[in-house]
Amino acid sequence: MAKLPSMFSLGNLLVLSLALNLSLILRMVYEREEGYRGKGSSCLKKQRGSLMADSGHRGALNLSLGDDSARASHSQGRERIINLDHGDPTVYETFWRQMGDKTSITIPGWQSISYFSDATNICWFLEPEFAKEVVRLHNVVGNAVTEGRHVVVGTGSSQLFLAALYALSPRDAAEPISVVSAAPYYSSYPSMTDYQKSGLYKWGGDAESYEKEGPYIELVTSPNNPDGFVRGSVVNRRQGLLVHDLAYYWPQYTPISSPADHDLTLFTVSKSTGHAGMRIGWALVKDEEVAKKMTKFIELNTIGVSKDSQLRAAKVLRAVSDSCDQEREGDSFFNFSYNKMAHRWHHLRAAVQRSGMFSLPSFSPAFCTFFAQVLEPQPAFVWLKCEGEIEDCESYLRGHNILTRSGKHFGVSPKYVRISMLDTDDNFTHFLDRLSAIQSS
Amino acid sequence: MAKLPSMFSLGNLLVLSLALNLSLILRMVYEREEGYRGKGSSCLKKQRGSLMADSGHRGALNLSLGDDSARASHSQGRERIINLDHGDPTVYETFWRQMGDKTSITIPGWQSISYFSDATNICWFLEPEFAKEVVRLHNVVGNAVTEGRHVVVGTGSSQLFLAALYALSPRDAAEPISVVSAAPYYSSYPSMTDYQKSGLYKWGGDAESYEKEGPYIELVTSPNNPDGFVRGSVVNRRQGLLVHDLAYYWPQYTPISSPADHDLTLFTVSKSTGHAGMRIGWALVKDEEVAKKMTKFIELNTIGVSKDSQLRAAKVLRAVSDSCDQEREGDSFFNFSYNKMAHRWHHLRAAVQRSGMFSLPSFSPAFCTFFAQVLEPQPAFVWLKCEGEIEDCESYLRGHNILTRSGKHFGVSPKYVRISMLDTDDNFTHFLDRLSAIQSS
Repeated sequence: MAKLPSMFSLGNLLVLSLALNLSLILRMVYEREEGYRGKGSSCLKKQRGSLMADSGHRGALNLSLGDDSARASHSQGRERIINLDHGDPTVYETFWRQMGDKTSITIPGWQSISYFSDATNICWFLEPEFAKEVVRLHNVVGNAVTEGRHVVVGTGSSQLFLAALYALSPRDAAEPISVVSAAPYYSSYPSMTDYQKSGLYKWGGDAESYEKEGPYIELVTSPNNPDGFVRGSVVNRRQGLLVHDLAYYWPQYTPISSPADHDLTLFTVSKSTGHAGMRIGWALVKDEEVAKKMTKFIELNTIGVSKDSQLRAAKVLRAVSDSCDQEREGDSFFNFSYNKMAHRWHHLRAAVQRSGMFSLPSFSPAFCTFFAQVLEPQPAFVWLKCEGEIEDCESYLRGHNILTRSGKHFGVSPKYVRISMLDTDDNFTHFLDRLSAIQSS
Repeated sequence: MAKLPSMFSLGNLLVLSLALNLSLILRMVYEREEGYRGKGSSCLKKQRGSLMADSGHRGALNLSLGDDSARASHSQGRERIINLDHGDPTVYETFWRQMGDKTSITIPGWQSISYFSDATNICWFLEPEFAKEVVRLHNVVGNAVTEGRHVVVGTGSSQLFLAALYALSPRDAAEPISVVSAAPYYSSYPSMTDYQKSGLYKWGGDAESYEKEGPYIELVTSPNNPDGFVRGSVVNRRQGLLVHDLAYYWPQYTPISSPADHDLTLFTVSKSTGHAGMRIGWALVKDEEVAKKMTKFIELNTIGVSKDSQLRAAKVLRAVSDSCDQEREGDSFFNFSYNKMAHRWHHLRAAVQRSGMFSLPSFSPAFCTFFAQVLEPQPAFVWLKCEGEIEDCESYLRGHNILTRSGKHFGVSPKYVRISMLDTDDNFTHFLDRLSAIQSS
């Protein structure tokens, strides 16, 4: 397992940071990002290229947020709309650009002709190379048990979510099975469950207040979208069927506690490596019949999953696993992404503290088996609460040209909003700038 | 428009062919395929590489069915299972291999990061390059009006079919809208319509016997899967909504009569260029609100469509359009594919006539605006009827290790079966061989 270096004192860091961030707002100095420095870890100890000469705490305190911030047009000022409603994971583009040709793929015109990838597999449209890299990456990261599991590939984990509902719903039941999740739950769960008005399954709302008898499906998202907390099931009744959405159970977002060992877990490249445009997700499924039914769903829905994207995803996952190889030179993907998130969260916390108008969730540090160190969660979304008189946080921030997603879409109060932490450096820099400006206005 | 050359007499051809085919069965001579020769057409006149030296009628009479037939293992004999149940379009692989690097695509690791392709488009996940090539190809082939249409991309046309049902179904209706199609209809329509038990739409069976009042959706597949006939709508009532599935409306399968000009038409690369593994289809949609709803469906279903495959599809469609350019050297895609289908249909008709146990649909020749000549349809499937005592044609052929799809799945008698004409040369050669063996057994 990879180890995180002993880090600087968070208290020292905060004080220094507050001072320096003030100068950020005033001076708008944009420099190249450096991120936290690592020492003594396998995945974190190696830094690439020009960063290798640096040492000490400068990375954490660096005022810039990345390459493209230098290109930001400051003339746009406060009229510029900063859209952080979606979780578009463009934050990792820099890493993949730095990798150069290593993860390029060339697909000849005569490939991907057949519908079939492996007619002997339950999931007959699963590219064997992709399946192999999924298993390898889980073994490298230690975030999921793959032994005794069927891999089912999907057009993103959205399709696999629907496939899971289809597979778990009883046939010929008198009424649709209830699908529940503890609030705040992922805002798309209700509409994804109900848009087809299926007679098989139906959105049942907040799992915390679910009281019906009989079978139900509970969606457990951990770490949770939108708030980033680690979760377990909450209904815990005899006839419960669980779907674990572990899209964010990767070392850059949360300490890896142990390999997830559930009946049905969902993952996606969108959030792990940041390749949302590929539309590739995967499920690890214990029960063969469930895997067969999920495969049947995808057959009826889209007759399989893009081979091109499966092949590309295989190459990208391989590059991530390779980058964690202790013998290799250069930054590992999780080193880069952990540092990136740490850097953003650090600056965000400082900005929020300065403002006094908002609050953030408070996370408990936990031991991360991947980095072999106690670390704090640093979620892919900020779950921001407007304090004081502001009842509709989304509208309030929209008034400052910051687009976020209201808590009401997640089944809770509109005093909360979800804000993406995965956007471009440029957008994130402007967001922090804007947040600070609110405080001073 | 491209022109087909004046062709040899079909009568002469048949006599010669029957004699020569007999020797095929006895001798199993495998040579390189040549196909029909073209003269005087823009798309058909140019032959590639070693074929250019040939002339006359040898192509049509050639006994071989392609490169890979030479590699067929004859030792497997009658135990070998020939699976022609699916319409896996591997027939075109030879063409794409011959194109070499021209249609290879290299995708760097930092591409396809974002969910978005063009946030200003109704279909925000549509790659502009793909949309451009779709419009260009329709203009080159003359098979669909694109002006005043919105292009919606889907994960194959299956997803677009479901998106169309979703978009056309009335919200808040007392009962689901009926979805009908004239038998024999595509075997997957009933299960695709009903597998989610949607409250929005419901399979209503054969359009010919549909008599309910009120709104309905009619699926018009032309040329039809399974039987290859050109079709129009049959219910023709005031509240009818039409979805035209034109997957096979391409010059290799059917004469192009005029540009299709409907409210909602579906196409797919699987059947046009043969790249089924890409899972890319597109819809041409007249009504903006319908295009928006279809986009919403795909957003909820899979949050967009693989960018990688869209980019590859753009390159492949561009190569097809380019290959029809009169100034270019080499075989055009439609020349190759037309010849391939003509060759297969010619040999199939001969084999069926010899057997005396089966019959085939009889098609009327029609003027093809693309080839500027009167031509016969040569569908992607054989709609074979077992004559005489055989009531279950699928079982009968399975007894001879030929897997086909029974007429009962298409809403008609089990005396019919659907057989793919798009499989590998090797499989098709063995199929003809087996069909002839049945007659002699």
